Amino acid sequence: MRKLSIIGIGAGNPDYLTVQAINALKTLDVVFLIDKGSEKSALTALRTEICERYIANKAFRIVAAEDPARDRSPRDYESAVADWHAKRAAIYERMIREELADGQHGAFLVWGDPCLYDSTLRIVDQVAAMGTVAFEVEVIPGITSIQALAARHKIPINRIGEPVLITTGRKLAERQSRDAVVMLDGGSAFTTVEDEDVEIFWGAYLGTGDEILASGPLRECTDEIQKIKTDARARHGWIMDTYLLRKTVAS
Amino acid sequence: MRKLSIIGIGAGNPDYLTVQAINALKTLDVVFLIDKGSEKSALTALRTEICERYIANKAFRIVAAEDPARDRSPRDYESAVADWHAKRAAIYERMIREELADGQHGAFLVWGDPCLYDSTLRIVDQVAAMGTVAFEVEVIPGITSIQALAARHKIPINRIGEPVLITTGRKLAERQSRDAVVMLDGGSAFTTVEDEDVEIFWGAYLGTGDEILASGPLRECTDEIQKIKTDARARHGWIMDTYLLRKTVAS
Ligand SMILES: C[S@@+](CC[C@H](N)C(=O)[O-])C[C@H]1O[C@@H](n2cnc3c(N)ncnc32)[C@H](O)[C@@H]1O
Ligand SMILES: C[S@@+](CC[C@H](N)C(=O)[O-])C[C@H]1O[C@@H](n2cnc3c(N)ncnc32)[C@H](O)[C@@H]1O
Repeated sequence: MRKLSIIGIGAGNPDYLTVQAINALKTLDVVFLIDKGSEKSALTALRTEICERYIANKAFRIVAAEDPARDRSPRDYESAVADWHAKRAAIYERMIREELADGQHGAFLVWGDPCLYDSTLRIVDQVAAMGTVAFEVEVIPGITSIQALAARHKIPINRIGEPVLITTGRKLAERQSRDAVVMLDGGSAFTTVEDEDVEIFWGAYLGTGDEILASGPLRECTDEIQKIKTDARARHGWIMDTYLLRKTVAS
Repeated sequence: MRKLSIIGIGAGNPDYLTVQAINALKTLDVVFLIDKGSEKSALTALRTEICERYIANKAFRIVAAEDPARDRSPRDYESAVADWHAKRAAIYERMIREELADGQHGAFLVWGDPCLYDSTLRIVDQVAAMGTVAFEVEVIPGITSIQALAARHKIPINRIGEPVLITTGRKLAERQSRDAVVMLDGGSAFTTVEDEDVEIFWGAYLGTGDEILASGPLRECTDEIQKIKTDARARHGWIMDTYLLRKTVAS
């Protein structure tokens, strides 16, 4: 039987790696990497650093594939994603069938936690459903960007006993004055929030050497954060940011 | 200066510990423990195991205090919590001031992640605001019970591009047919959900040797999960469970 681990490596800081992840890395024969192009080279750098530091089997191989092209501003978001998943599934199926021998242990290293806004698990399920190659799956959690954000701001993510919505820039309008953590915000969806009494806790490149934090009453911070984003995007060529919008807590 | 680390130790499995947490543990002089009574002895067992395995300074001391009494079914939830926090703050202030010397490194070990439904960070902020003892705070994220739940069920926590609400048993009614992760459910709030097309992914004592998982269409699983809960509570004397309610995904 082939074994496939889907390993959360944490969102940015190599020290976010867990003992469980390290133990899995120790026995790996093959690491599957999907190359997302130069823009995300920081992500590739973290993966490479982790492989070198922790994989004990020095005969391990890296099997890399190009990420299939993806429509980034589709009319129908869901079907564009489904289409992209199908292309990826075909690539993953081939990699697992051809590059992982029976009895071997392979892994996908996933940024943050594999269970949060990541497609690896869904694609691997699709491969399993094809029935062309048998393998056992193990999922290993990793520190998410939400936790990195909260830890670096030294704040709880929820108010006492209160819910919090995890959402995307695209769906932020659905929050209905609830506290919300926003991910995958291609624009600056926080500029559309009209509530008076909201604080923002914002972070980019969390856990990495390029980390930037900003926080304060949303009204007062909007322009500043937009400026920081523009500058950072110009400097790095790309940005990844996450933020909490929280009703102002009387203190 | 005193240094205080608030260390997330993960929700159940000692292997959820991160490299960052281990590095902090290595230099500890004092570990502060709040004793919650025998009912939560599994939690104390994990903390003790972690201290013994990872604290390199073998001269480290454990400073324990009794948890102040708490009104578990108050009329006003928020003010009962505030009252309990104030009592805890007085205890924490004394522990930090009297038991941690200048230049020493102390820590609170928090179950899961300190930023998710945990009061340590708020109480430590209250102590800092008293101005009676100066210390520097560091927050170290840990794997939450939400991530343990998703990893053990091998499922994403969100549908593609969709939001998910993190909430409590008490506030579940506010979810408005959204996907929701429910924590702190003293009863069985999932029995009140009326949507037809919802699946439940349920887990108790996640990551520990006593872990129990159950999943399926909510309608069909309600009775079974209630029975499992009753039996488990009878056997262990207490239960901790978390679950995801997710709109059924066509597949
Ligand atoms: C495709 S999702 C992956 C999330 C990841 N699985 C996790 O657990 O954090 C990518 C989004 O995560 C957020 N993100 C990931 N890493 C981040 C970091 N180091 N700093 C800020 N945001 C980050 C950004 O919102 C980004 O758009
Ligand atoms: C006070 S909250 C603490 C949450 C913790 N800070 C975390 O990150 O998971 C306690 C609640 O967390 C959930 N929980 C914590 N550990 C769990 C476990 N191992 N299995 C199932 N649920 C757990 C339960 O819903 C419980 O009521």
